Amino acid sequence: MALLYLEPDGRMAVWAEIFAGAGEQLLPGPDAVGDPALVTHMACWVPPADLSAYPNLRVVISKVAGVDRMPVLPEGIRLCRMVAPGIEAMVRDYVLMAVLMLHRDMPRYLDQSVRGRWEAAATTRAKDRRIGILGLGRTGRLVAETLRDLGFRVSGWSRSGTGPEGVDCYAADGLGTFLAQSDILVCLLPLTAQTRGMLGAGLFAQLPQGAGLVHAGRGEQLAMDDLRAALGSGQLGSAMLDVTDPEPLPPDHWAWRDPRVIVTPHVGAYTPADEGARHALAVIRADRAGLPLPGEVDRQKGY
Amino acid sequence: MALLYLEPDGRMAVWAEIFAGAGEQLLPGPDAVGDPALVTHMACWVPPADLSAYPNLRVVISKVAGVDRMPVLPEGIRLCRMVAPGIEAMVRDYVLMAVLMLHRDMPRYLDQSVRGRWEAAATTRAKDRRIGILGLGRTGRLVAETLRDLGFRVSGWSRSGTGPEGVDCYAADGLGTFLAQSDILVCLLPLTAQTRGMLGAGLFAQLPQGAGLVHAGRGEQLAMDDLRAALGSGQLGSAMLDVTDPEPLPPDHWAWRDPRVIVTPHVGAYTPADEGARHALAVIRADRAGLPLPGEVDRQKGY
Repeated sequence: MALLYLEPDGRMAVWAEIFAGAGEQLLPGPDAVGDPALVTHMACWVPPADLSAYPNLRVVISKVAGVDRMPVLPEGIRLCRMVAPGIEAMVRDYVLMAVLMLHRDMPRYLDQSVRGRWEAAATTRAKDRRIGILGLGRTGRLVAETLRDLGFRVSGWSRSGTGPEGVDCYAADGLGTFLAQSDILVCLLPLTAQTRGMLGAGLFAQLPQGAGLVHAGRGEQLAMDDLRAALGSGQLGSAMLDVTDPEPLPPDHWAWRDPRVIVTPHVGAYTPADEGARHALAVIRADRAGLPLPGEVDRQKGY
Repeated sequence: MALLYLEPDGRMAVWAEIFAGAGEQLLPGPDAVGDPALVTHMACWVPPADLSAYPNLRVVISKVAGVDRMPVLPEGIRLCRMVAPGIEAMVRDYVLMAVLMLHRDMPRYLDQSVRGRWEAAATTRAKDRRIGILGLGRTGRLVAETLRDLGFRVSGWSRSGTGPEGVDCYAADGLGTFLAQSDILVCLLPLTAQTRGMLGAGLFAQLPQGAGLVHAGRGEQLAMDDLRAALGSGQLGSAMLDVTDPEPLPPDHWAWRDPRVIVTPHVGAYTPADEGARHALAVIRADRAGLPLPGEVDRQKGY
């Protein structure tokens, strides 16, 4: 068994060291492959279009949490997304910051700063602010728990409709009710056929007037023109976007200039090299032992 | 016993209702005082210079948490600062937001936004970021606990040198050691003769190079010119100021224009009217029962 590390990058040395320490074989890039039949696992962003060169390939391990750029793999090859405790905590920290920034009127204060204007607005208490979280996977649950513990009123929406204690959870058909009580809406959904373009005029219209949006899902879920219109009409009050459509956002894009919008360049999380390597090791060992693979993607659901 | 509510404002109606419901007497402003001998308690920002008109005045209750604007009261009149759970949570939320904004490079991203520049910097994990908290009173402890629970490395400095579990605490003579390990320094100190001007060149020089500063204490603790010099030399990397010197900050002040500095107009907390009224009721009842007064200020310490 050997793992082929595709797309060699700065993290590869850390992976190589951790694999060596664990007594597992890592092939550092396609050029290091002598006998392709040795390759049983592969870590990559996007695998080669033709995988038939690797007759014994069993599992593709995504280097990132999102697998929406992954093609459909041939029957018999399993797919694992990157799972690392550090990723979830980093996204949680970003979302927490973004929610607090909208909750505490940072877009307004940043805009006032440009004109040197010292003018305090009324402060809303956390217990009077309702946060709605779209997506209650590992990260969404962590975000929900953290915001709940800070005293916010938190609800969540997911396929299953289940979530942490103290969080009002809604399943698919409860979307309207969920949205109507989300003063700040946080998107943490994976990109699928169902979620593409989901953050658009129809959804915004169901939020309370003046709601805030924190988008930390995928850019393609957001209809940017609808966002602009909703801000213009006052239906949305502010937005904090870590992902955009397109990405990178062009320098002359309106969202950079709109004081109600704060854009960050997709920095919610990166995978620390050591955690990524340990995840890959865990996948290989689970595979060898015939156990469930950590982070395995359900082909039907797409995440 | 009656409480005189000085400086009538928008909160007074809430106080009046809560006092009426509790069967306690509230005099809504100086004009409502028939017999000054009835006034035993007084809620105010700043009391009248001459308190001899109120021969039975026992306690002055500050409408705000900070009592640095309070004059020295005549012997025999006790002083309580405003204490309300909502205040501490609001300041905590603000400081949490500010720490996260410096931790996650928001000054850089906001500056890039002005030029429409999409460029991600490396992200530091919370466990690799050391937060130092100056002042471990009720709010400081809450901030320390919250940051600790999010995985940051937290230390604190206070007169007593005691603080929450899992937080490295330093007393007065440990200031240098404390500062040397504070990547982000948070000031939550009360304003006293000892803390006035404390945040200056000498202190900044003891921080790790490129440190961040979150100032949520009092403006007069910060030497703004020293801050500018420390940012200029790179000794400080960024700062988030909710209090400034002077306050309000004049429209043409350099701090508004410096991309490494984010200024908010003293919005860390306000006292919700209902909580303020309940605090005042608690003071009156403790006084009547001969119990310790909530929020009583120690004349020696000044807070």
